[in-house]
Amino acid sequence: MSRVGLFAVAAVLLAWCVGASAEVPMSEATQACVECHCQVTPGIVAEWGKSVHARVTPAQALAKPELKRCVSATQVPKDSAGVVVGCAECHTANPQVHEDTFEHNGFQVHIVVTPKDCAICHPKEVEEYGKNIMSHAYGNLMNNPVHHNLLDTVDGFQDFTGVETVYKTPDAETMADSCLYCHGTKVEVKGVKTRETSMGEMEFPVLTGWPDQGVGRVNPDGSLGSCSSCHTRHAFSIEMARKPYTCAECHKGPDVPAYKVYMVSKHGNIYYSMDKDWDFKNVPWVVGKDFTAPTCATCHASLIVDEEGNVVAKRTHQMNDRSPWRIFGLIYAHPHPKSADTTIIKNKGGLPLPTELTGEPVAQYLIDAKEMAKRREAMKRVCMACHASSWVGGQFARFEQSIESTNAMTLTATKILLKAWETGVAKGLAQGDSVFNEAIEKKWVEQWLFFANSTRFASAMAGADYGAFANGRWYMSKNVQEMADWLQFKLQGLKEAQGGEGVKGKK
Amino acid sequence: MSRVGLFAVAAVLLAWCVGASAEVPMSEATQACVECHCQVTPGIVAEWGKSVHARVTPAQALAKPELKRCVSATQVPKDSAGVVVGCAECHTANPQVHEDTFEHNGFQVHIVVTPKDCAICHPKEVEEYGKNIMSHAYGNLMNNPVHHNLLDTVDGFQDFTGVETVYKTPDAETMADSCLYCHGTKVEVKGVKTRETSMGEMEFPVLTGWPDQGVGRVNPDGSLGSCSSCHTRHAFSIEMARKPYTCAECHKGPDVPAYKVYMVSKHGNIYYSMDKDWDFKNVPWVVGKDFTAPTCATCHASLIVDEEGNVVAKRTHQMNDRSPWRIFGLIYAHPHPKSADTTIIKNKGGLPLPTELTGEPVAQYLIDAKEMAKRREAMKRVCMACHASSWVGGQFARFEQSIESTNAMTLTATKILLKAWETGVAKGLAQGDSVFNEAIEKKWVEQWLFFANSTRFASAMAGADYGAFANGRWYMSKNVQEMADWLQFKLQGLKEAQGGEGVKGKK
Amino acid sequence: MSRVGLFAVAAVLLAWCVGASAEVPMSEATQACVECHCQVTPGIVAEWGKSVHARVTPAQALAKPELKRCVSATQVPKDSAGVVVGCAECHTANPQVHEDTFEHNGFQVHIVVTPKDCAICHPKEVEEYGKNIMSHAYGNLMNNPVHHNLLDTVDGFQDFTGVETVYKTPDAETMADSCLYCHGTKVEVKGVKTRETSMGEMEFPVLTGWPDQGVGRVNPDGSLGSCSSCHTRHAFSIEMARKPYTCAECHKGPDVPAYKVYMVSKHGNIYYSMDKDWDFKNVPWVVGKDFTAPTCATCHASLIVDEEGNVVAKRTHQMNDRSPWRIFGLIYAHPHPKSADTTIIKNKGGLPLPTELTGEPVAQYLIDAKEMAKRREAMKRVCMACHASSWVGGQFARFEQSIESTNAMTLTATKILLKAWETGVAKGLAQGDSVFNEAIEKKWVEQWLFFANSTRFASAMAGADYGAFANGRWYMSKNVQEMADWLQFKLQGLKEAQGGEGVKGKK
Repeated sequence: MSRVGLFAVAAVLLAWCVGASAEVPMSEATQACVECHCQVTPGIVAEWGKSVHARVTPAQALAKPELKRCVSATQVPKDSAGVVVGCAECHTANPQVHEDTFEHNGFQVHIVVTPKDCAICHPKEVEEYGKNIMSHAYGNLMNNPVHHNLLDTVDGFQDFTGVETVYKTPDAETMADSCLYCHGTKVEVKGVKTRETSMGEMEFPVLTGWPDQGVGRVNPDGSLGSCSSCHTRHAFSIEMARKPYTCAECHKGPDVPAYKVYMVSKHGNIYYSMDKDWDFKNVPWVVGKDFTAPTCATCHASLIVDEEGNVVAKRTHQMNDRSPWRIFGLIYAHPHPKSADTTIIKNKGGLPLPTELTGEPVAQYLIDAKEMAKRREAMKRVCMACHASSWVGGQFARFEQSIESTNAMTLTATKILLKAWETGVAKGLAQGDSVFNEAIEKKWVEQWLFFANSTRFASAMAGADYGAFANGRWYMSKNVQEMADWLQFKLQGLKEAQGGEGVKGKK
Repeated sequence: MSRVGLFAVAAVLLAWCVGASAEVPMSEATQACVECHCQVTPGIVAEWGKSVHARVTPAQALAKPELKRCVSATQVPKDSAGVVVGCAECHTANPQVHEDTFEHNGFQVHIVVTPKDCAICHPKEVEEYGKNIMSHAYGNLMNNPVHHNLLDTVDGFQDFTGVETVYKTPDAETMADSCLYCHGTKVEVKGVKTRETSMGEMEFPVLTGWPDQGVGRVNPDGSLGSCSSCHTRHAFSIEMARKPYTCAECHKGPDVPAYKVYMVSKHGNIYYSMDKDWDFKNVPWVVGKDFTAPTCATCHASLIVDEEGNVVAKRTHQMNDRSPWRIFGLIYAHPHPKSADTTIIKNKGGLPLPTELTGEPVAQYLIDAKEMAKRREAMKRVCMACHASSWVGGQFARFEQSIESTNAMTLTATKILLKAWETGVAKGLAQGDSVFNEAIEKKWVEQWLFFANSTRFASAMAGADYGAFANGRWYMSKNVQEMADWLQFKLQGLKEAQGGEGVKGKK
Repeated sequence: MSRVGLFAVAAVLLAWCVGASAEVPMSEATQACVECHCQVTPGIVAEWGKSVHARVTPAQALAKPELKRCVSATQVPKDSAGVVVGCAECHTANPQVHEDTFEHNGFQVHIVVTPKDCAICHPKEVEEYGKNIMSHAYGNLMNNPVHHNLLDTVDGFQDFTGVETVYKTPDAETMADSCLYCHGTKVEVKGVKTRETSMGEMEFPVLTGWPDQGVGRVNPDGSLGSCSSCHTRHAFSIEMARKPYTCAECHKGPDVPAYKVYMVSKHGNIYYSMDKDWDFKNVPWVVGKDFTAPTCATCHASLIVDEEGNVVAKRTHQMNDRSPWRIFGLIYAHPHPKSADTTIIKNKGGLPLPTELTGEPVAQYLIDAKEMAKRREAMKRVCMACHASSWVGGQFARFEQSIESTNAMTLTATKILLKAWETGVAKGLAQGDSVFNEAIEKKWVEQWLFFANSTRFASAMAGADYGAFANGRWYMSKNVQEMADWLQFKLQGLKEAQGGEGVKGKK
């Protein structure tokens, strides 16, 4: 009772600012936070006031029937079970592991709430997310020399000497603003700073890579990821996480056009036209009743049941649990890696890539046919909540054909690039040069990173023009022709230069 | 009474799954479908349960005043007039003409519901749609050698031999996934297959080109089109068909950016900002009251009235009924073809195209000035429900100027291409080669298929940047410069090669 | 009382058409308008009927507490204070200054309602808007020779002579449809025209540049701008102006991708997911309660308060009031110009540009560090309604780094272009040629107008991929390589041409 304290009275006093009903038991610590932050950062306090966290205690959440439960812990610490999940419950949890913990008005507060904090109530989700390749998005980019080099040639400054271009290494701010915005930054404590505030002088930790909500953020407590990538602070609304705008934050560009493809799919059409009549908050999510077309979450993450309560799909936070193929980001589509940490992979050529340059998968690091079949079946069960077998079978046949044909078109582009390296009109692996820094190499990158990816997404989600004219097959075909032209121009230049020299030599 | 049978009792039993009120009379056949499919495909059964089809019988629909009526039949078969339009009413209709009819639990069911089935209640719409060029989208693409060749060079695999690129013919899955996703596939029965299902072993027909909901789908009953392209199964919601997301499924890419243009138009702004206050279900649709800005359907298809009930525009399913000009898809904008089947067209050069390569229209196959004026007036009447004469006149003057100027810019690009063919640095018609397979030809295609189209759409719908920097005039201008540069590089290469050979020849 | 006249009776009679409650006092003049226009243009009359203008009189508006007030006049003309703001109140205001005033059914009506008319009730907003650079968007484009030349090379027709391309001057319709759609046209009266109408023969003024709602429209009364750019006729809904679709009309293309960046930002995600629960009509706008994430208006224009009524940000119609940097449209990002009329600027090279070709700002025409700091603080106060200091500080540090790095990448592209001019493979300033008409110059334009702009917007608003692969750093990097290749191809051609001639010369 002591921690809950005068919650009823306080809650009444705070109601104007939190906006919540006065009937929720708030911890004393959270009351203290809210009292000041109502004025200092009124927006987020009010937003939190509308959240489930501000209205339901862990004890109440635990008492729900299993399918309706959003917490996966079997019990929560006694102290916090009876109060709502407020500022203090997260921002003062696990103080011993957070390097960014600092003394703030008598409380040991940390700025960066991490999966370890969320795991107090949601341990299963955090565990699953750890197997999700997204949780390693920082390391898989920064600790893989090939991927890191791609980043360098995108984010790094280029100068022109009057004769040639030269690349420089990108700075931390640029990387955090570009690739690491989605992949996540490394957040570390670099000392403290005293600042004048409306409450007087105060001391705060200085953090690198902050702010960031990237999916693979390396946190000051050593954990990986940021639950708020998808479960946006401070409402942590399941409604938002289920809507496609959440995924669009990182999955809309030409490299991963999932959202754009969804928008023009029949599913997207139904969603945008009818979502106002759907129930995005119901747990479990009932197909046909709560929604009449899938969003990203439906197919890849959510717990789905039918109206009788039969489970169509189990909730998962390992996002590739229902996907046999990894269709984007790498040179060729391939079976998903076994480990979320992909830096352990080495192909025959010694490169940290899941396929050879020919497209052949590096099988020992990738899931096998049996696991692929299992995932394919899990996805098909979702499809078959609305579609007959022949529909679903036809859809999957096309998708797998697209994987094959886009990989083949990537190999064609690769052959042209290899010819350019071989003839010396471009410098590649054999010359110890970056494979991403020249114009022809950038065209090769677009072949797989933009056009083949787009085509595969269009195929996977029935997104029509993204497999045709909107960064799809049209561009794969045009790009091959332009690469071939470029090669011809360069070889012509080379021949004439040599011919010219030959002529000169003769004189 | 026998067919309606125990509908009341059954409906109560089924209410949990259909979600509908128990008061609707369902045929015995539909009850039988729903009983199993509630569990087999619960999503679509629940979706159908929310539809008008599940709540209103044809007899009730026929009893409405004419302007409020959504059925155009003057009568419907007695058997089905008194029951709601359920699974069986469509999937067992006209069994004799459907090649995909199969025996399924005692019923003669077909998978592919076609315009012929819909025509039982909606004959006028089906008849109009038959005159709509979209109904011939399959044949107009596949049976026109020029268009088919464009498809081949987009969808076909390209290899690189080390010296040159070679095209291969695309496979059926790729075409179905790409161009034919919107144009429609040819759905044919290729035998039967026995499959283990949750209800035991069952036999199903095997279909080619399935699934597909393309606008020109060639159906197993010989009919053309798929009403569900726009009237999405299984809700068949007029609300959805009236919203722009439906059209966006196929009209958003760089080749037909209608949706994108709409999004940034003033009309689009009003729609996205205020649509939550609109009534998308009211029939007829009342301008100003039900909606305060047009969607795609308002201008091109819907029955529109004012608050007094005066008809502003009649409902049409021949989508170009209010459009004098065909502004996309072909090399030059031109008056709409008279016939929905455009494979009958031949220009002076013998090509199946509605204009010459110079842009001159092939008049005998196209609507005449009088018909154009009639269509222009029909569209203007819609505009003038909100805009004064001078506004509308100014808008149309700009649009027709854009048609002229974009055609002129296409002609410029064509002249460069002709020079390339003439000088032999590219191979075209005279050489019996594809006009779409080389880099310079692909740039020429983008001039009209992307940039001129985008500019015309922007002009037609007041979409600002799509006529300027967003795939509009900026790109038309840049593309001409790049084509000219390409020509220069190639001619230079040619000259030197000849010069070089000349030198060699002298030795 | 005489002007209000039989308003109660009339309003009842008109209720069917206006849709408004019968209790609003309408002027006799507006009644006369509505009586005919209910039938002539029913859509806009009904739309107006739903507006605040149709429901609240200026006198009632003036009686509200200051923060709740939407009118900034301290008093309004007696005649109109007691009637709602109807057709006549705007379209017959200030008849003496409107060149487009004409006699219409006994009233002196003008077509083009201008800021001068709106200023009767909203003088402060009009005054602020006059300091807004947008109000000069017509002159800043058309009266600046460099900018005008860019327009000419975008909108002008290009022909191909068989040898080279030639530009022609664009026509008025094309300009109005392209650049001036957003910048605004010059609307002038060019005589009168008699037209047959449903009410008999009538005379109307003929206007150039009409229709147009561009932000810098030059009006027949000499005023600049169109309030309906953002406050869409005839609802003039604050809800619409606060939603991002309004800004998207002109700020979505590759040159100004603000809307696209917003869509993929965390703020955008919250908006699209949760906006149905927000209150877009409340004045003042309460952070956290009425909305939980900013829209464009929140950060750049709106009056924002917290739940206690403390002002977080004052309303402004000088849109750059909270922005230190001008990040788009020009070659380099730079401090905002002091004057909304930027034609007065001259750099050291004599060009009407706010920076040198090296990026150095032309300081005397631009706001100083103190003004920049003031604007930065105004914006930060908005951020800090939800975010802590370290978050906001980190965000701004990245933004300013992006300004520096994108300017540097523009300088690199400029160096390549200068080399092209210097070596004679392209013609630029020194040759008295356009700097926008050749392919290499168009690539240079894209470096700053598309890619650097996109990167800066992504940085300013945390839009992830728009700073990476979606027209961001990837394209800046690729473009530099392609420009360098182009230069090499051209120089090679030049060398050989000279070499060849040399050889020839020797013979």
